[in-house]
Amino acid sequence: MSKGLTTRSEDYSRWYGEVIEAADLAEHSVVRGCMVIKPWGYALWENMQRALDRMFKATGHRNAYFPLFIPKSFLEKEAEHVEGFAKECAVVTHHRLVAGPDGGLIADPDALLEEPLVVRPTSETIIGASFAQWVNSYRDLPLLINQWANVVRWELRTRLFLRTTEFLWQEGHTAHATEQEALEETSRMLDVYATFAEEFMAMPVIKGRKTEGERFPGAVDTLTIEAMMQDLKALQAGTSHFLGQNFAKASGIKYQDADGKEQHAWTTSWGVSTRLIGALIMTHSDDLGLVLPPQLAPAHVVLLPIHRDDESRDRVVPVVEKIADRLRQQRFGDREVEVEVDGRDLRGKNWVWIKRGIPLRVEIGPRDLDANQVTFYRRDEGPKERHSVDIDAFCELVPSILEEMQANLFQKARKFRKDNTRRLESWDEIQEFFGGGETGQGGFAHVRCSGSAAADEKLAELKLSVRCIPLDGEPDEGPCAVTGEPAQERMVIAKAY
Amino acid sequence: MSKGLTTRSEDYSRWYGEVIEAADLAEHSVVRGCMVIKPWGYALWENMQRALDRMFKATGHRNAYFPLFIPKSFLEKEAEHVEGFAKECAVVTHHRLVAGPDGGLIADPDALLEEPLVVRPTSETIIGASFAQWVNSYRDLPLLINQWANVVRWELRTRLFLRTTEFLWQEGHTAHATEQEALEETSRMLDVYATFAEEFMAMPVIKGRKTEGERFPGAVDTLTIEAMMQDLKALQAGTSHFLGQNFAKASGIKYQDADGKEQHAWTTSWGVSTRLIGALIMTHSDDLGLVLPPQLAPAHVVLLPIHRDDESRDRVVPVVEKIADRLRQQRFGDREVEVEVDGRDLRGKNWVWIKRGIPLRVEIGPRDLDANQVTFYRRDEGPKERHSVDIDAFCELVPSILEEMQANLFQKARKFRKDNTRRLESWDEIQEFFGGGETGQGGFAHVRCSGSAAADEKLAELKLSVRCIPLDGEPDEGPCAVTGEPAQERMVIAKAY
Repeated sequence: MSKGLTTRSEDYSRWYGEVIEAADLAEHSVVRGCMVIKPWGYALWENMQRALDRMFKATGHRNAYFPLFIPKSFLEKEAEHVEGFAKECAVVTHHRLVAGPDGGLIADPDALLEEPLVVRPTSETIIGASFAQWVNSYRDLPLLINQWANVVRWELRTRLFLRTTEFLWQEGHTAHATEQEALEETSRMLDVYATFAEEFMAMPVIKGRKTEGERFPGAVDTLTIEAMMQDLKALQAGTSHFLGQNFAKASGIKYQDADGKEQHAWTTSWGVSTRLIGALIMTHSDDLGLVLPPQLAPAHVVLLPIHRDDESRDRVVPVVEKIADRLRQQRFGDREVEVEVDGRDLRGKNWVWIKRGIPLRVEIGPRDLDANQVTFYRRDEGPKERHSVDIDAFCELVPSILEEMQANLFQKARKFRKDNTRRLESWDEIQEFFGGGETGQGGFAHVRCSGSAAADEKLAELKLSVRCIPLDGEPDEGPCAVTGEPAQERMVIAKAY
Repeated sequence: MSKGLTTRSEDYSRWYGEVIEAADLAEHSVVRGCMVIKPWGYALWENMQRALDRMFKATGHRNAYFPLFIPKSFLEKEAEHVEGFAKECAVVTHHRLVAGPDGGLIADPDALLEEPLVVRPTSETIIGASFAQWVNSYRDLPLLINQWANVVRWELRTRLFLRTTEFLWQEGHTAHATEQEALEETSRMLDVYATFAEEFMAMPVIKGRKTEGERFPGAVDTLTIEAMMQDLKALQAGTSHFLGQNFAKASGIKYQDADGKEQHAWTTSWGVSTRLIGALIMTHSDDLGLVLPPQLAPAHVVLLPIHRDDESRDRVVPVVEKIADRLRQQRFGDREVEVEVDGRDLRGKNWVWIKRGIPLRVEIGPRDLDANQVTFYRRDEGPKERHSVDIDAFCELVPSILEEMQANLFQKARKFRKDNTRRLESWDEIQEFFGGGETGQGGFAHVRCSGSAAADEKLAELKLSVRCIPLDGEPDEGPCAVTGEPAQERMVIAKAY
């Protein structure tokens, strides 16, 4: 049990995979492209879900559940939607297996479905069909629904959490009587995501609007939060789409307004997924392994009793249990302080917990007891930086230490982003910044840009793309730094996941 | 908005469907056999999940997530398993849709999967594959995992919640070093289910063992909780399986024991599903609609402000909001008291809430304010039975009223079961009890029985089956009341869902 991970500077991508393995978060399954989310990784997702779910409910949304399967004909109805999405997907064609001629099982030819079903890659169409039935009058609006679900998009190249064939997510779907209300909802939910990213994940994000080329197929407008990973690439961490009346028209979501006139509703959709776990890893973790923001950590503290014989064990263990109980009565954020006690007889078990990213490691041995103290280590400090504190004081202090760590992680990530963000004025500067080497390793560049297809194409030569047009940007007319076309505003360009 | 449901005595099955519709719990989707769980129904499921999840975690289990898809070859490996389960299932054969010759979409012939995938009907095989990798030494045991997931079993005849092609459930999967520990786990989880059924659902259950004919395919022993529905049929509400070493052998779950010897693990699995919502409906609801045990009700109280003009509205609404806030600061069970305020201008909205089963309806109008009181109605009493109470007293009393209602529902269901349970000694008595008419409408019969295939067959003639061998039964040797064969114990026989 030593450290021994590939370092980030050696090979970031390999490091990423090793952190996941060392932290016991997830693994590739035998099913191509699918992952097994292991308990430590799933607990992290549960904490994300709990925090987000509370925010969704506080903004008036209610959860519901819609079918896993979408009839092929639904996808045909929405040509534009299909174009972008529905092609690479799992297609269910039969409803039975039978013994084949060689004794193995085959899809039963007599059980061919009349209409193939697709495993949902996203649920706009199937939820739209329900909304069309649920909405009759303006009194039924707004309809504010969220679904927690698994979705499947057939992917050729997969990476744990970042891109897998099956993943877990939430998808919000709302219908409104007016354009204005739907626009407000779209930004409200982007704000929820940004707040979650910054306050829970300790991950700074830029709120922005996508250019046409990067928009969700069928959306009028796609809002996004973009975060900078440690390898200076951008990661799109959540999106909120204003769908105008496009989906309402395709699904027939109509209502009678107060004057008795029939209108199409205005809809939105918004989602985040287990991809956030990938973002979290690449925002905070270090060469020793996972680093977890305390707000989302599956456990906050691990207590490691130290004893070399039965006598010292008999002294230490009851004190450890008592400390665990006292800590569990404290609260941090919206949860109790969660405590693990690792009493295993295992050499180097502190490294197990360093790699798993637990915020506080606490050693308690006979000498600590003699001094009525504990020795603790913070995951945001060096692995040997120890603190010895009186037991009572420690138990009181834990929530404030966790709060400080949460704030530190956010500040550190924000500084990193700031240090790697530039305002660039020309194609030469862009080439230099993204050209590699010490001074040109890239990051986020704020560039006056037209956002045209021509700009996208030229940026793609350097493996760059427009990540977003920041919502807090100011008009900045002049020539596009990429193409020279007339441009109205600054956009953030970067390499991206 | 009148009542107008089909009554239970008129047509129980139709009544069941109407209760679900009137309570806005769920509906059939356009996808054959699948359901849409609407917000009120899904909130009920979330409350079930929360309570169960807490109990699973308190007994040492951790959640994880495994792939939706199972390779066909996994099902071939477990012949016995397949026999019972895997045939009627959704088979994924392609990973892409393309435009077909007539312009519509077809499964792309070039995207045929090398090996078909099945949408999980249950996850023993795929979880077994992970367990085989995770377990090496006796130190890795016990491995106590739970998964919340959707599963798919292709069903010809579906009924909302009771039998749908896709449903939501949890499946616990555990591996142990010894037979004894696995047996203990099997009964521990049955106890968890029984406690949940009785304390949260207010639904009395019989804990028992299944006979061979009713066992989970591949299990050595299947434990069950069986509940009596209002139409006197039994409903299997949860099962816990002792799988011996059968699945460990099929999946290769092996460990080195303390002596360095390789052993197969002993495994269990256990599950409950959205079927529980069907059980809840058929245990408590009445001819007016849904009745909810307060422990699981999506909301406990609805406040209905009554005002006929702007002036009375301005008086009433602020008081209603204040009462809502005060109630929300109270706790009931493991949650805050959840309050809905229905200020809609809608005639007969009390009936909306009666049908939805909310435990307490509270009317607050100008005359109530003059008397500093509220008028409230309990869902477990007649719809016109009103109580007028001082506002302060009401706010204090709500948790104890809810507690009383919870207890009442359980007592009522227990009495109903007792009144419809008999101890029978002969085939004549069985025929009479289950023969229809006033005195022979059936219920649960405790019958000395062999549990043989012959007995199953004869019982099936009367549409009866052995539901279970009660765990608290005593040996009772003598001739089987069904077949005359030698028998050792009493079994519960009934018609069943």
